[in-house]
Amino acid sequence: MNITPELSETHYFETNLPPSTLAEHTALANAFVKQHHDAKRPVVLLTSGGTTVPLENQTVRFIDNFSAGTRGATSAEYFLSHGYAVIFLHRQFSLLPFSRHYSHSTNCFLDFLSEWGRIGEDEEDGGKAEQAATPDVVVKAKYRQEMLSVLRKYQEAKKKNLLLLLPFTTVTSYLFTLKALACEMQCLGNEALFYLAAAVSDFFVPPSRMAEHKIQSGDIPSLGGDGSGVGGGKKLIVDLDPVPKFLKRLVEQWAPQAMIVSFKLETDPQMLLSKCRQSLERYSHHLVIGNLLSTRKREVVFVDREGIEWIRTPEAGQDSEEVEIESLIVPAVIRKHQEMLERRKTGAKK
Amino acid sequence: MNITPELSETHYFETNLPPSTLAEHTALANAFVKQHHDAKRPVVLLTSGGTTVPLENQTVRFIDNFSAGTRGATSAEYFLSHGYAVIFLHRQFSLLPFSRHYSHSTNCFLDFLSEWGRIGEDEEDGGKAEQAATPDVVVKAKYRQEMLSVLRKYQEAKKKNLLLLLPFTTVTSYLFTLKALACEMQCLGNEALFYLAAAVSDFFVPPSRMAEHKIQSGDIPSLGGDGSGVGGGKKLIVDLDPVPKFLKRLVEQWAPQAMIVSFKLETDPQMLLSKCRQSLERYSHHLVIGNLLSTRKREVVFVDREGIEWIRTPEAGQDSEEVEIESLIVPAVIRKHQEMLERRKTGAKK
Repeated sequence: MNITPELSETHYFETNLPPSTLAEHTALANAFVKQHHDAKRPVVLLTSGGTTVPLENQTVRFIDNFSAGTRGATSAEYFLSHGYAVIFLHRQFSLLPFSRHYSHSTNCFLDFLSEWGRIGEDEEDGGKAEQAATPDVVVKAKYRQEMLSVLRKYQEAKKKNLLLLLPFTTVTSYLFTLKALACEMQCLGNEALFYLAAAVSDFFVPPSRMAEHKIQSGDIPSLGGDGSGVGGGKKLIVDLDPVPKFLKRLVEQWAPQAMIVSFKLETDPQMLLSKCRQSLERYSHHLVIGNLLSTRKREVVFVDREGIEWIRTPEAGQDSEEVEIESLIVPAVIRKHQEMLERRKTGAKK
Repeated sequence: MNITPELSETHYFETNLPPSTLAEHTALANAFVKQHHDAKRPVVLLTSGGTTVPLENQTVRFIDNFSAGTRGATSAEYFLSHGYAVIFLHRQFSLLPFSRHYSHSTNCFLDFLSEWGRIGEDEEDGGKAEQAATPDVVVKAKYRQEMLSVLRKYQEAKKKNLLLLLPFTTVTSYLFTLKALACEMQCLGNEALFYLAAAVSDFFVPPSRMAEHKIQSGDIPSLGGDGSGVGGGKKLIVDLDPVPKFLKRLVEQWAPQAMIVSFKLETDPQMLLSKCRQSLERYSHHLVIGNLLSTRKREVVFVDREGIEWIRTPEAGQDSEEVEIESLIVPAVIRKHQEMLERRKTGAKK
């Protein structure tokens, strides 16, 4: 069967199962969007982390895209500090805003804690801990100041309901949820921003070719379509189809009024700009942020209809703290979003 | 080139690069083993989490095996509580002993904390927090008792140096490190136990076929060997070779005196026992622990030369706490290890 590009997204949604969480996540997003729409607060849908492509129905093996979720989790904090409400659509167990400062650190989080009165775990306590029925567990003095600052921001975001955390795992869950959330956000019009930092797989295994059980190393793999080219019965051939280009649907149908920002991660410096331009031409959205795997924490390039602009962190001096590049990316994106809002307002008045 | 099974492991180590951490991890293990050998303490090498198979040299995509590392991290705590020293060879960012109680929970770890004097984040504080220069950050009262118990066990293990955490990511790093650690542990003789709970990939992409850069969705993929069977240049064909059977080498050469326990995870109940028996026959090690993906937290089966034995958690009543199955598995494994030690002692005396 030959599927035209226009049909292939529809076909994808018809032949893949939606995640069991879809109704719940849609309802949560509906209430969240309503609250912030009423408060005239801009809302960003921020996607983060890698997607997985299961190779088996009862999933033991899957193909994954590299992403700890640092870009997304860090950006979310800066969007919050600039007055946006954030829907954080993230890969389960990837980094989260605020807790990211501690969760993937070389320290286990228990290393930050001690019993009340103990300075460090090496020090003998003076019997205090044993005397009290249940001693307090406190953050060690040397970590206290920073943790307090993070904790206060986190609690404020929670209290004001400014951050909605929605997890996904597979590329299919991601796409179903993205579509549903975009539709919930249509009432926001131009005030909606899509910041698509998740590393989404370009390929998937269609349900019709998915193995039911764990693929056995002695099997002729059932994933290989007709099994041609499988030599010796000991190799594994994984035959993946391209994921339809959903960005086009998002721009044209699911979120026609919103500002849409996509990311392009490459490893070859020679290809970065051309891939960004190609993406912008193909999907006609607002901004592509290009980055190389090796330098992604120090420089990115903004590619839009006005041209290209590199954003780089200042050279870290010996005394200066490391600047998070997201502290530069997010305000620059917000500036473009505000300019777009101004232009549309002006346009509407004329 | 035809590679005989005996040569294939050697060939694997000759054609794949060791991880950059190998020397450091080997030195850490050397000191750790020496300390506990001197103290006549048994040592378990516990592997945990899934391995990855990179599809590109500058890795964006990889094949992963499902494993959060729950079995390994939980088992490590029970080995510690039974007097074993634990080398915890784990997938980076998988669950760790002790911190596992909090890190993959539905709560963010910041949810466990509050400023001193605040009961919960919903409650207005009486100005205390603002008055102090830097208020204490404490674990909330309702979590304190349990956290204190976990923290004390964690700190004791650290203080006595009973737990060595060594991370890996790829299947190649895992295999190089396993080999090096096994050789470091030879001095322990029968006192060494291998508890191989990691989900190790059966397949890998040999360096000669690895793509240098991120595979482009428009490319004819370079992973597909000669590219035959690639239709339209839009599909992705991943062509993987079997990973040599290292368990045989471990049993025969790297750790000939140790007790070796492997795990078998299946999804098809019909295949579980036969796969366990096949593994035991093929590698001639001591024990295979079989488990099904769907019931792995409630039942496992021990398969060894003496026969099979199911281990199941008691039916959870309404009042009873959930029993961790590792609290049953680990003592049963230790019993078998102690019996083996007794038999060898008796055998040596005769």
